[in-house]
Amino acid sequence: MAQGSYVEPSFTRDTNYIPDRITRDARDGWPVEPGRYRLIAARACPWASRAIIVRRLLGLEDAISMGLAGPTHDANSWTFDLDPGGLDPVLQIPRLKDAYDGRFPDYPRGITVPAIVDVPTGGVVTNDFAPMITDLATQWTEHFRDGAPDLYPEPLRAEMEEVMRRVYTEVNNGVYRCGFAGSQEAYDEAYGRLFTALDWLEERLAGQRYLMGDAITMADVNLFTTLVRFDPVYHGHFKCNRGKLIELPALWGYARDLFQTPGFGDTVDFTQIKQHYYVVHRDINPTGIVPMGPDLSNWMTPHGRESLGGKAFGDGTAPGEIAVAERVPSADNPVLGPDGLLLT
Amino acid sequence: MAQGSYVEPSFTRDTNYIPDRITRDARDGWPVEPGRYRLIAARACPWASRAIIVRRLLGLEDAISMGLAGPTHDANSWTFDLDPGGLDPVLQIPRLKDAYDGRFPDYPRGITVPAIVDVPTGGVVTNDFAPMITDLATQWTEHFRDGAPDLYPEPLRAEMEEVMRRVYTEVNNGVYRCGFAGSQEAYDEAYGRLFTALDWLEERLAGQRYLMGDAITMADVNLFTTLVRFDPVYHGHFKCNRGKLIELPALWGYARDLFQTPGFGDTVDFTQIKQHYYVVHRDINPTGIVPMGPDLSNWMTPHGRESLGGKAFGDGTAPGEIAVAERVPSADNPVLGPDGLLLT
Repeated sequence: MAQGSYVEPSFTRDTNYIPDRITRDARDGWPVEPGRYRLIAARACPWASRAIIVRRLLGLEDAISMGLAGPTHDANSWTFDLDPGGLDPVLQIPRLKDAYDGRFPDYPRGITVPAIVDVPTGGVVTNDFAPMITDLATQWTEHFRDGAPDLYPEPLRAEMEEVMRRVYTEVNNGVYRCGFAGSQEAYDEAYGRLFTALDWLEERLAGQRYLMGDAITMADVNLFTTLVRFDPVYHGHFKCNRGKLIELPALWGYARDLFQTPGFGDTVDFTQIKQHYYVVHRDINPTGIVPMGPDLSNWMTPHGRESLGGKAFGDGTAPGEIAVAERVPSADNPVLGPDGLLLT
Repeated sequence: MAQGSYVEPSFTRDTNYIPDRITRDARDGWPVEPGRYRLIAARACPWASRAIIVRRLLGLEDAISMGLAGPTHDANSWTFDLDPGGLDPVLQIPRLKDAYDGRFPDYPRGITVPAIVDVPTGGVVTNDFAPMITDLATQWTEHFRDGAPDLYPEPLRAEMEEVMRRVYTEVNNGVYRCGFAGSQEAYDEAYGRLFTALDWLEERLAGQRYLMGDAITMADVNLFTTLVRFDPVYHGHFKCNRGKLIELPALWGYARDLFQTPGFGDTVDFTQIKQHYYVVHRDINPTGIVPMGPDLSNWMTPHGRESLGGKAFGDGTAPGEIAVAERVPSADNPVLGPDGLLLT
C-alpha cells in the first residue's frame, strides 16, 4: 500500500486518506463518467488488488482504464517501472507521487495504491480503498457488463459491514500487525488476534460456500487478497506461522475456489507479490532475497467446495476471458475461461 | 554451532576444528576414561544435539557428564547462562571460550558446540562433531548401557559414510546455505540443491523405515536434528520454503517416528531452538522477534511407519526414562517411556 519504514512498537496503519468519492450525484464534485478516470493499482498490493478484481468482476474495464505500478518502489513513491520508458502511458508520469502532487502540491502523506486519478487534470481523486470499492459496486451500475454480480447486496449490507470490519482489523491488517511488530509482546498479541480470527473464518466457511452465503460479495474479495498472499508471504515474512493456509481445510478450499473463479486467480501475480514484500521491507528482510517457495501448483487442485452449493455469480454470469493487455505476465498465473477451466 | 556474522555471498562453513580424538588406544593422548570428560552442548544447536542424542541412546550419561550452554550467545562465545550463577557447575567457567582458551591461549577460531572438555585440565579436547560421534559409538562400547544399539554397524559403514556425506553437504549444511546466502543467485542454487536432496530422501524413506534399513544408526541421528528444526526454523527463517516438512509424507512420518522414539524427541527443546536462531541471527532477523508458530502438537500424532517393519534398536532395547536432571524444561517436550508412549 505505502512506503517508508514499517517496524514500530505496535504497528498502526496510516489511514489518513483522500476521502473524495466519485458518485452518480457528484456530491464531492466527481461524477460517474466513463473514460474520465484511471485506476492506478499494483498487483503486488492486497488493497489495490481488491480494486483490480472488482473492476474485472463488474466489467468496468472500458469505463475506467487501469495503470499498474511495478512491484517495488523507492522511499517516495510507487513507480511505473513496468511501462515502456518508465512512464504511465496515459498519465505520462514516472511516479505515482506526481499524481498526488498534481492534486495537492507537495502532498505530505503516504503515496498509496489503489488511487483513482482524474485524467484531464492528472490529480488523484481518492485513495481511500474501502469507499472506493463500494462506490465501484454501487455508483457505476449503468456501466457494468451484462451479468455483473451484485457485490454489495442491499439486504446483506449491515452484516457485511460487520464481517468486513472484523476481517479488516483482524486479518487484512492483522498480518501486517504481526510482521511489523517492534516488540515480542506486540507480536505475540498480534499473532493471537490473527489466528483467533482465522479460526472464526474457518468455522464460518466450513458450512457455507462464500463469506456471506451462496454468492460472492465484496467481503470475499477483501478476504481473498489476504489469503492468496498468506503462504507465499505472510506465513514466513510476517511470522504468521501457526500453520500455513493449506493447514486450514475450509479456508484453503474456499481460497482455491475463489482463485479458480474468473476475476480472482487470473488477476494474481505471485511473482510480483513476493518481490514486493521481500525487496521493499529491508527492515525485516535485510538481504532482499526473495524465497523461491512455496510451490504454487496446489492453487489449481480440486477444492471440493461445489458440494456446499451456491453460485459464485448468483443470478449473473462470470466475466469473459481476461483481455490480453491485462493478462498477468507471470508463468504461475492461470488464464481462466468463464467455467473456471484453464485456457492456457 | 558458532557465532559471529553469517551472511556471505555463498555461505561456507568454517570446518577448521580441533581434530583430536578420544580413543581406546589413546593415540592422540586422550584415552577412553569414564568420569574424565565433559560434553558441552546446547539444545539449540543441531550439531550438538547429535551428541546429546547419541550419548543417551548409548547410555553414556554416567561415563561422560554433560553441560549445556543457553540458546543465545554473545559475539565471542556460547555462555552458561542457564546455570546457577552463570557458571558451568563442573568446569566453573561462564563462557565456553574459557575452555577453548584453556587448551590454546587466545584460541582464534569459532567457539563451537559440541565440544568435549578434559575436566582435569579444563581444556577442549575436540570440537570436531563428526569423528566425535563416531568415537562415542565405537570407542566407548565397554561403558554402554545394556541393550545399547550399534549406531555404526561394520557391514553398513561404507554406504553410511556415503549417505551421511550427502545428507551433510545437501541437507544439514544445505539449510544454512539457503539462509545465509548473500545473493539471490547463491540462494536460488542452494534452494535447488536442498530440495533435490529432500526429494531423494523422501523416495528412499517411502520404502524403508530408517535411513540405513530396519534399525536406527548414526545416519538417522544426523538427519533427525535437521528435520526437527525444519518447520520451526529453516522453513521461514532460512527461506527453505518449497514446502514444510509436513508436506513430505515419508519424511514427515519418519521424523515423527524418530521423535517418538526415546532418545530423540525427549532431548528436543523447541523453545531453545527457536530462540537461538531468531535471536542470534540479527543479520537476517533484525527485530530478534521469535515466531510463536508453528503449532508443534503434530509431532506426537500417529506416523504409521510401523507398517514398514523394522525395529528401532535392532537386537537392543530403548534407553530408559530420561534422568530428571536432564529433562528438557520446555512444555512442548514429551517425556517418553521405552515404548515411546508419553509419560507426562
